[in-house]
Amino acid sequence: MPEFLHLISPADALEIILDALPQSWAAGIEVVSTSEAHGRVLAERVTAPHPLPPFPRSTVDGYAVQAKDTFGASGALPAYLRLIGEILMGKTPTIEVRPGEAAQVHTGGTIPDGADAVVMLEDTQLIDNSEIEVHRAAGVGQNILLEGEDVQQGDIVLEPGTILRPQEIGGVMALGMTSISVAVSPRVGILSSGDEVVPPEMDPGPAQVRDINSHTLSALIDRLGGNPILRGIVPDQHDALFEAVKQSHHEDDLIIITAGSSVSARDITGDIIQSLGKPGVLVHGISIKPGKPTILAVADDIPLIGLPGNPVSALVVGALILAPLIRRFLGVRRVLPIPQVPAKLSVNVVSQAGREDFLPVRLQKSEEGTIAEPVFGRSNLIFTLIRADGLVHIPSNATGLSAGTEVMVTLFSSEL
Amino acid sequence: MPEFLHLISPADALEIILDALPQSWAAGIEVVSTSEAHGRVLAERVTAPHPLPPFPRSTVDGYAVQAKDTFGASGALPAYLRLIGEILMGKTPTIEVRPGEAAQVHTGGTIPDGADAVVMLEDTQLIDNSEIEVHRAAGVGQNILLEGEDVQQGDIVLEPGTILRPQEIGGVMALGMTSISVAVSPRVGILSSGDEVVPPEMDPGPAQVRDINSHTLSALIDRLGGNPILRGIVPDQHDALFEAVKQSHHEDDLIIITAGSSVSARDITGDIIQSLGKPGVLVHGISIKPGKPTILAVADDIPLIGLPGNPVSALVVGALILAPLIRRFLGVRRVLPIPQVPAKLSVNVVSQAGREDFLPVRLQKSEEGTIAEPVFGRSNLIFTLIRADGLVHIPSNATGLSAGTEVMVTLFSSEL
Repeated sequence: MPEFLHLISPADALEIILDALPQSWAAGIEVVSTSEAHGRVLAERVTAPHPLPPFPRSTVDGYAVQAKDTFGASGALPAYLRLIGEILMGKTPTIEVRPGEAAQVHTGGTIPDGADAVVMLEDTQLIDNSEIEVHRAAGVGQNILLEGEDVQQGDIVLEPGTILRPQEIGGVMALGMTSISVAVSPRVGILSSGDEVVPPEMDPGPAQVRDINSHTLSALIDRLGGNPILRGIVPDQHDALFEAVKQSHHEDDLIIITAGSSVSARDITGDIIQSLGKPGVLVHGISIKPGKPTILAVADDIPLIGLPGNPVSALVVGALILAPLIRRFLGVRRVLPIPQVPAKLSVNVVSQAGREDFLPVRLQKSEEGTIAEPVFGRSNLIFTLIRADGLVHIPSNATGLSAGTEVMVTLFSSEL
Repeated sequence: MPEFLHLISPADALEIILDALPQSWAAGIEVVSTSEAHGRVLAERVTAPHPLPPFPRSTVDGYAVQAKDTFGASGALPAYLRLIGEILMGKTPTIEVRPGEAAQVHTGGTIPDGADAVVMLEDTQLIDNSEIEVHRAAGVGQNILLEGEDVQQGDIVLEPGTILRPQEIGGVMALGMTSISVAVSPRVGILSSGDEVVPPEMDPGPAQVRDINSHTLSALIDRLGGNPILRGIVPDQHDALFEAVKQSHHEDDLIIITAGSSVSARDITGDIIQSLGKPGVLVHGISIKPGKPTILAVADDIPLIGLPGNPVSALVVGALILAPLIRRFLGVRRVLPIPQVPAKLSVNVVSQAGREDFLPVRLQKSEEGTIAEPVFGRSNLIFTLIRADGLVHIPSNATGLSAGTEVMVTLFSSEL
């Protein structure tokens, strides 16, 4: 417990690094085809060049009429109207509805001049080709979508910072905008250091292991809307690592260093981060498990995250720190609560007060609902993590959770 | 109420169409670079070619020792061990630890022959370059990650049908697999019919509107793991639409038709779907709102969805029917519960018994937590939908929900 009391909470750590970044740390703008813009962040204000719908439309199949001609109409006492023609889809109506008249109209069809209501087909009876009976009164405006009812010409329909979902893509297309300005994804440089680490395509020697974290992180950054730049594996030597970090500092918008795991490697990494630029290291250790030895720094307006070398930590720090940083860069305006799955904890788990724990769990269906079963295993075992579906957050004021507690599970597939 | 009682529930509708599909309706396999496989569905069984970790590793910085040499050691009565050298990262140890000896080892470093425990640096004192004090006993295996502790050689580590998250990408890379077999995304043909509909790049004439649904659907299909094939806007004429649907039937794995909105257009669409192949139309209307007039069919082993022409329906049917169909095609093995956001409903809403309602809501922060505010507006208004963050499901046995009810909101950004 004492060691964690000196550490900073993840919320405070995030605030410290966000506050140290200048306004200029923000995405550039690029124009992309709207059909390719799904999931991107809008970088312009969208104003409607014309109303939507662009003309009054029927919302039902029926007859366009003057409402007053139907007043008092019922099955017993129908109103009789003269049928003057049909409104064809996609064609400007050439007929006008006058008192005592009706024009056939289809769902989505244009309301002809003179008409102010549509009576539904079900409420009418065709007598012959020139007359209908109306069995129910229609009020003014009934079954009509007014011109501009969705959007008026000149309305601001989307603000910069909006994440483009399928409906925004459809809406922008409806306004005829086939290309659109979006925020350029941040280049996130990923450096792995470690004398024992080799790339996945190499056969590791007897005391070597393949790089896992660069690739886990790369996929995570991709999901968070960043552009991962794999800067390779650097030996645990000051000069080599410094050169690699400097290059990333010149070319990327954000730097992640997965430190070598030895004390000297961590010291080298800390020194390099500190000497890279001002203000340097801001946070050295966060009160979370896993992820405690995380370093947060800003060097001459570029943020830098030093991550412990295990994959669970990478995913936890990714969700708590990296995701909000990327959102800030992209200018995301509105952040929704993270959706979660309620579940019952299968066993007692202990936790340490003063520390926020993130417990990997696997979800199981049972007759009493969803069960969250902790996946025990050291945080440096990647396949242990693969058995987990998500994480349960144990707040810092708790000393554990009892079996049967209702917990909220954040799925790896949604936000982590 | 009566009309919905004749309709089929969304769960039954899904089961009917899934049951009508043959086993052969399934994705082919393609080999992709593992680094590009994020979010894809694994199509092979992955077996570990070697153990992970491939050799016993230290989990701490300290000294590799024989545990029995430390038994009974304490600060008051330390054990004295001869320091025989340092295990370098990435190098095969050339030293062996014998009784009374210790070798310096870093986190992740190889455990040398002879050693069966690691004492942490904090529990030792360096006397000189050739001797250390140990202040705490270490048990056999302590602070050691055994060879194969994560994965044994020959273990099945991933089964086909697994969705590849960042951790699976990292895990597969750790085993040296830089390419991997994944399910080929289904080609989902999207046809829009309607005499009044023009493509977004065209200036609509006086009674014309731009196509919204193809593009909303296309982005949705992309998110669900499908490959949207835009087959354009087809006039509401039997022959033209039949030809277009037949081509999609030849070339695509799944067909979506957004019907023209007039009665005759819907009739034409229904006829074409029915005549395309066996068994034909299976479901004609689902007890949901919006989305009721949905048609589900299977024509000679190709599933077909006829969608009503409004965007909210498209998103609801997309989540309830299209997403599970695509998962079935891809062979997804394990489906987790949809994560949601708990919120309090801001106002009373009415609903119809016998029908499952999906109410678009916007989330607002308040002092009492998250508030779900219904976004009222007709379901054919795209910008109304854009104001919504997600949907609240009102079950078919409810006649409404009171203000203040705790509801679960499915965000459009996560599953819809």
